Amino acid sequence: MFKIIAKDKTTKARTGKIQTAHGEVNTPCFMPCATYGVVRTLSSEDLKDIGIEIILSNTYHLYLRPGLEIIKTFGSLHNFMNWQGPILTDSGGFQVFSMSSLRKITEEGVEFQSHIDGSRHFFSPEDVVGIQRTLGSDIMMPLDECVEYPSEKDRAKTSLELTLRWAERSKLVHSKEFIVRRQDIGMLFGIVQGGTYLDLRKYAVSKLLETDFPGYAIGGLSVGEPGELMLEILNFTLELLPEDKPRYIMGVGSPLDILNGIALGADMFDCVMPTRNGRNGCAFTSEGKLTIRNAQYAKNKSPVDADCDCFTCKNYTRGYIRHLFSLDEMLGLRLLSLHNLYFYNNLMVKIKGAIERGELSEFKKRFEEEYEGNSKCKNQISK
Amino acid sequence: MFKIIAKDKTTKARTGKIQTAHGEVNTPCFMPCATYGVVRTLSSEDLKDIGIEIILSNTYHLYLRPGLEIIKTFGSLHNFMNWQGPILTDSGGFQVFSMSSLRKITEEGVEFQSHIDGSRHFFSPEDVVGIQRTLGSDIMMPLDECVEYPSEKDRAKTSLELTLRWAERSKLVHSKEFIVRRQDIGMLFGIVQGGTYLDLRKYAVSKLLETDFPGYAIGGLSVGEPGELMLEILNFTLELLPEDKPRYIMGVGSPLDILNGIALGADMFDCVMPTRNGRNGCAFTSEGKLTIRNAQYAKNKSPVDADCDCFTCKNYTRGYIRHLFSLDEMLGLRLLSLHNLYFYNNLMVKIKGAIERGELSEFKKRFEEEYEGNSKCKNQISK
Repeated sequence: MFKIIAKDKTTKARTGKIQTAHGEVNTPCFMPCATYGVVRTLSSEDLKDIGIEIILSNTYHLYLRPGLEIIKTFGSLHNFMNWQGPILTDSGGFQVFSMSSLRKITEEGVEFQSHIDGSRHFFSPEDVVGIQRTLGSDIMMPLDECVEYPSEKDRAKTSLELTLRWAERSKLVHSKEFIVRRQDIGMLFGIVQGGTYLDLRKYAVSKLLETDFPGYAIGGLSVGEPGELMLEILNFTLELLPEDKPRYIMGVGSPLDILNGIALGADMFDCVMPTRNGRNGCAFTSEGKLTIRNAQYAKNKSPVDADCDCFTCKNYTRGYIRHLFSLDEMLGLRLLSLHNLYFYNNLMVKIKGAIERGELSEFKKRFEEEYEGNSKCKNQISK
Repeated sequence: MFKIIAKDKTTKARTGKIQTAHGEVNTPCFMPCATYGVVRTLSSEDLKDIGIEIILSNTYHLYLRPGLEIIKTFGSLHNFMNWQGPILTDSGGFQVFSMSSLRKITEEGVEFQSHIDGSRHFFSPEDVVGIQRTLGSDIMMPLDECVEYPSEKDRAKTSLELTLRWAERSKLVHSKEFIVRRQDIGMLFGIVQGGTYLDLRKYAVSKLLETDFPGYAIGGLSVGEPGELMLEILNFTLELLPEDKPRYIMGVGSPLDILNGIALGADMFDCVMPTRNGRNGCAFTSEGKLTIRNAQYAKNKSPVDADCDCFTCKNYTRGYIRHLFSLDEMLGLRLLSLHNLYFYNNLMVKIKGAIERGELSEFKKRFEEEYEGNSKCKNQISK
């Protein structure tokens, strides 16, 4: 399912290929968020044009809207949204804990109220695998609990143990299904939790390796902890994961976070940042971030990023896009979403090249200098 | 500037070509509204892909936002919005009278307050030609007053006489400019006003013919008068206009209005309907209009219009687009805007073919039967 292609000389970075039921994914890869079966403002054809190979969708959201009955009618999420490439779906756990109300966790699963209409629902680990099967997911995630930052160690440990029992149950039901329908069932990854406690992270990895998954995700990061702590946990956890399996850092992150994660040996990333920032008028460029609404761009005839070959940069100026944003015109949001996603995807392409040449350290140093030295975007949470 | 290509056998319809500084326009043509230099949700490349040959922009809006200083920096509206095809600009008269506040009309021109920030401005007929020159308009309109429906005859007559004096002044300043810079100056059309009074319409045409314009627009329609009255005025006025000049019905209209207008000898149309309806979830189809939000489409796997070759219909189902609308996701608004504009443009293509074959009456009858017999769209102002 996963093949390593090249390894960098001085970092732990590697390039590889993941084989899925809907085609190959070259790693390291960035997965844009198609929360409700749509990457906001963009069509599936736009994603293909950008070069995106795999997208992420949210089980919790799709379960509530449009609901499984509708997805079943269309056969799969792929058919529904006309995206025939690979789809990774999350477990819904993070969303149940962050978006829904009146959560009640038991050994059996989690009861919650919809954030949309307050209706009551229940997810067991088995349900969540079943829902992702209905979606036709190529890479599934088991139901997990993500503890808030900061959490007491006792809380983190109790939560982790539940998550690990849920992971086993998920694997069990997935294996049964796999035996029945060998051909088209998606992979099920394991998720490493454990909060900010290294020994808990270590324990989590050892238990998950016992259960044995075709890939491992690191969850519970980018939830408010300091950047250095995140890097420490990442470094520690990635070291423990088997080399021959893909490693996915959930919900991360900024271009610099991703570059760091890759250098530490991670292969897969997802984040709302490129599209959300795009809709907020913040563009990623090779020289850092740029706030397009700034008055200084009103008469600017340059593209968003002179170094970029995306549709937006080939056709439109900063001045015109600023005009669209001052009108609150949707085309502006779309043009920057397109650009930002291209920027992220193109960064992956460049990183792959650097790894293959064994030069990721040099690339990383140069990128950081250019990117950090010039950032023009204000009031953004993360770089 | 205008060449008739073919005439229909049994109606007054004709096909033709208008030569502009930015290329040829095949008539009859529909011009989508790029009010602020953008057809909402769509890029200029989208318009090209649909087959649009000419767009309309609004002088009043562009004068206020982004303002002429910014357009000057870019050289023209064409450059600013990256649309190198022909652009027709209106005079701003209709918008001053319908959108701005505290209007004060004098012989000299009109003073008004911006609907955006209340700032005070003044447009003379000469200013309005100058503004359209700055925009780089290919077809300009002279400042006019559009009377409300219903209007007393005295009011309509006084207003018309002012509009005609303004038309002469516009022509004068345009001719002077034309002598100075023969090459790249846009055409200036005349506008026939006169409210619902046929003798005033006749008087308007005779005066405008004396001044002599390369094309004539019919204004003051679709402002609330009954459909039959509109057709009567149209029929009457179009009869009076010279055959060898293009005839433009401003702000019209629905597919059936346009079809009627063409049968009466009109060549050019503009309307916000395809894009505005698209954003409201109403799609034009060969079987009438369709409200995509209706629950009945939730599991519908058909395209919006089975007869349509647009991007939306080739790639997405009613069920998916309904899902996007229930999320208030911009992609939905965009997909229906694209489809509706394609529908309008494709209707023009079909009409041209029917005229060339001398079969417009048959085409019109068939279209009306299919379209009117099945309309599924509720609560829409016009068909």
